[in-house]
Amino acid sequence: PARSPWTEVSAYNNNNNNNNNNNNNNNGVKRSLTMETLNPNVKAVEYAVRGPIVLKAVEIEKGLQQGMKRPFEEVIKANIGDAHAMGQQPITFLRQVVALCTCPELLESPAFPEDAKIRARRILQGCGGKSLGSYSDSQGVDCIRKDIAAYLERRDQGVPANWEDIYLTTGASDGIMSILKLLVSGQGLSRTGVMIPIPQYPLYSAAISELEAVQVNYYLDEEHCWALDVNELRRAYWEAKRYCNPKVLCIINPGNPTGQVQSRKCIEDVLHFAYEEKLFVMSDEVYQDNVYSPDCQFHSFKKVLYEMGPEYFDSVELTSFHSTSKGYTGECGFRGGYMEVINMAAEVKAQLVKLLSVRLCPPVSGQAAMDVVVNPPQQGEPSYPQFLKEKMLVLSALAEKAKMTEEILNKVPGIKCNPVQGAMYAFPRIFIPPQAIEEAKALGMPPDMLYCLRLLEETGICIVPGSGFGQKEGTYHFRMTILPPTEKLKVLLEKLSAFHIKFLEEYAALQEPSR
Amino acid sequence: PARSPWTEVSAYNNNNNNNNNNNNNNNGVKRSLTMETLNPNVKAVEYAVRGPIVLKAVEIEKGLQQGMKRPFEEVIKANIGDAHAMGQQPITFLRQVVALCTCPELLESPAFPEDAKIRARRILQGCGGKSLGSYSDSQGVDCIRKDIAAYLERRDQGVPANWEDIYLTTGASDGIMSILKLLVSGQGLSRTGVMIPIPQYPLYSAAISELEAVQVNYYLDEEHCWALDVNELRRAYWEAKRYCNPKVLCIINPGNPTGQVQSRKCIEDVLHFAYEEKLFVMSDEVYQDNVYSPDCQFHSFKKVLYEMGPEYFDSVELTSFHSTSKGYTGECGFRGGYMEVINMAAEVKAQLVKLLSVRLCPPVSGQAAMDVVVNPPQQGEPSYPQFLKEKMLVLSALAEKAKMTEEILNKVPGIKCNPVQGAMYAFPRIFIPPQAIEEAKALGMPPDMLYCLRLLEETGICIVPGSGFGQKEGTYHFRMTILPPTEKLKVLLEKLSAFHIKFLEEYAALQEPSR
Repeated sequence: PARSPWTEVSAYNNNNNNNNNNNNNNNGVKRSLTMETLNPNVKAVEYAVRGPIVLKAVEIEKGLQQGMKRPFEEVIKANIGDAHAMGQQPITFLRQVVALCTCPELLESPAFPEDAKIRARRILQGCGGKSLGSYSDSQGVDCIRKDIAAYLERRDQGVPANWEDIYLTTGASDGIMSILKLLVSGQGLSRTGVMIPIPQYPLYSAAISELEAVQVNYYLDEEHCWALDVNELRRAYWEAKRYCNPKVLCIINPGNPTGQVQSRKCIEDVLHFAYEEKLFVMSDEVYQDNVYSPDCQFHSFKKVLYEMGPEYFDSVELTSFHSTSKGYTGECGFRGGYMEVINMAAEVKAQLVKLLSVRLCPPVSGQAAMDVVVNPPQQGEPSYPQFLKEKMLVLSALAEKAKMTEEILNKVPGIKCNPVQGAMYAFPRIFIPPQAIEEAKALGMPPDMLYCLRLLEETGICIVPGSGFGQKEGTYHFRMTILPPTEKLKVLLEKLSAFHIKFLEEYAALQEPSR
Repeated sequence: PARSPWTEVSAYNNNNNNNNNNNNNNNGVKRSLTMETLNPNVKAVEYAVRGPIVLKAVEIEKGLQQGMKRPFEEVIKANIGDAHAMGQQPITFLRQVVALCTCPELLESPAFPEDAKIRARRILQGCGGKSLGSYSDSQGVDCIRKDIAAYLERRDQGVPANWEDIYLTTGASDGIMSILKLLVSGQGLSRTGVMIPIPQYPLYSAAISELEAVQVNYYLDEEHCWALDVNELRRAYWEAKRYCNPKVLCIINPGNPTGQVQSRKCIEDVLHFAYEEKLFVMSDEVYQDNVYSPDCQFHSFKKVLYEMGPEYFDSVELTSFHSTSKGYTGECGFRGGYMEVINMAAEVKAQLVKLLSVRLCPPVSGQAAMDVVVNPPQQGEPSYPQFLKEKMLVLSALAEKAKMTEEILNKVPGIKCNPVQGAMYAFPRIFIPPQAIEEAKALGMPPDMLYCLRLLEETGICIVPGSGFGQKEGTYHFRMTILPPTEKLKVLLEKLSAFHIKFLEEYAALQEPSR
């Protein structure tokens, strides 16, 4: 196969491999902003979910549209949890409420149900000039914050939630970045260490690079369905103590990219550890509505903390994150999200508000979408039957696809996939032959990137190498979403299986002495 | 008057004045995140537009709602350019397009005009799965980027614009922050210096604090209607050379908070200087549609650069910013914006895309709103007459209010207001009596903050002290928007005038020997 595209990708990754001619323009005028003068923290950022393989996929897609011939007819982007792009239909009620807020004249239209109108009127009442076009407070619209607090109390069966602890955000990513920004300080040995799971969602490593914090890895246990073992947390913590000040603990539950759902016992252990070591806990719970395995249940960190008693609930610093982008709504484009901040000092909160205020406010239409996520139609309301049907359709399809993905992948020799208990991804381990590993090294790229690039080039399937999320040394994985429609996903998995077998055979053949 | 609220405000500003009890909780458990461990760059951030006075205003407003008695009936927030909150009506066409994108079923409704439907269909065609709920590319939706490029070519009478140089953003603030992030590097004497006008819009100083860059002030000439004198730029540049590496030049035109519109000659001088010193130019042009003075005209930095010839146009690194939040649309809540990046090295652009991709994408409904701003109804289209009427109504009212504000303020002894040629603000100079200055110093706050707090407490009018924007040592100002409806603005200005006279009298009386 042609090597040129891989070299391109390799150049993308190798920041120092730049050509001076590109830094200056055709006239040879020296630029002020070059690869040499670029902020080194920006240079250090990596984000594989939209990394080189995805850029390559976009290029191939454009080529196909222009009539270029390939051994496949379309690129299937299984790289990112982008449900609507994969054909998932929006929840009608959510869109109705946002459209009503956008065009209040529609409040007079009989085409819209009364329960959607009630919600839209309530949201508009909370907006300056009753317009979605006003800035909201930096923390978000008050009545939406109140709806979120009420949702949290329902979800956590009565654990108290204070609406003033709720901050709307521009997707969960924005909230995670803001909280990390507060937490990073110190130099040398006292520099803030941020503990993240490996494998992780690369927003975390990217934010840590950008903020020049210290990344502290704790490894999830692949042999036990990506469980979090508190002994591993302890190991990582004490090792990190030697070179930084580990004071932040990030948890992703349900897991991204790993798809596990943490047990209540495990959460309690983690919180106990955080309590003992006074760690600031960030719990990324954006997949809280995406639990498929009948043996698993989502437990919020906050509820478990509450049940551990006031000694814990009144002291552990915990911020949890949610979003409109996942769940059964999958409204990524609206960039809605919120965080709940517990046990933060009042003065630090004032600093958080100040920091948020520089960006003025999260998108108000995203806030409206978030309001519907936490306050959907209730039994007895006119939109309830349709809402329930739509919600169940999405969730049952996801559950079916989670199971199917695991089953098909585990039939392939050299692929081993843990159950997809929750979230939207499979993160199978793949065997890569030593010859392929060598070839990848010669090309200056991780072996699983070589694998994913070959897959893309030969089948049009776009997935993300495990190296973009972190993995135990010497193991290889990829992340793929389970979002394509069932039939398409099945075809994708079959193509992927065939590719894998061919890949193994090809490299095994390279080892034959006859070659 | 009672002093307590001022002391609160003073405490807000004085970051080191924190109470240890607040950093820990009721149980006396030591927190991980305290004012001592907070990121010092976050601590250093200041953003007066939503600063202590505005927090105080919100508090008073809530008190009024709960029946508390005040010498006024409502708080009028003239602190922020938030048009809809001040009663400005949205442009119907823009909202129709966004609602159609949100609820595509409405495309079948005869209540929506055909031209709005055409635009909505085009935008949806550019979205993954034809849904506003998909992530867009990190740079934004391709067809919207193309519409922006076409708009720029029309606006700049044929100066070429490449759609691949266009990046959608979450409001202009997000774009400005992203570009600054790329530019900051080096330590000590080689640390990036960012030249900003004084007075400035405090997003700039806040971003510089957050990124730990060096703020380099150049002063606008109040005596000459806040003109930018290139000699002053040169002075600031060469002085800064002694302690940092000044390589970024920020311009705000039309000016915020100062309301001036730069002459073509002045822009050419500035660009010539940037060319000579190889400065990276950031031109904040979000008020490009807000020019009221018949003697003034908006000239884009890009067009002037083009007209200076290829030696300049092919070499000066220029990024310009625009937004849905200002102009005649005033759609702040949608957080729409874009930037055009000229003469940036291809590899640096790849790094910019990588940085943007971590946040996934700007809100897609904001992108749709931006599309309408750059591609409004054209003559001959069904929505044109109504659109034109609405646009003209907003712009003529703003022009009238700009003139009225200047006139009324200049009648008050001790207030001197330059013409509001553009943007949305007056930034008058105010005389503050020496006794008031002393009192403010004793309270640990800038004299113009004392002035604005007194105004708020006595009249309910919320404006921002000049000290939040920067001003020449020993001068005092405030920024107020001209956005309230004409009649209300008139009352506001009259109350403000009466307050000012009373304020002067009160402090003059303090000087009388009889007291």
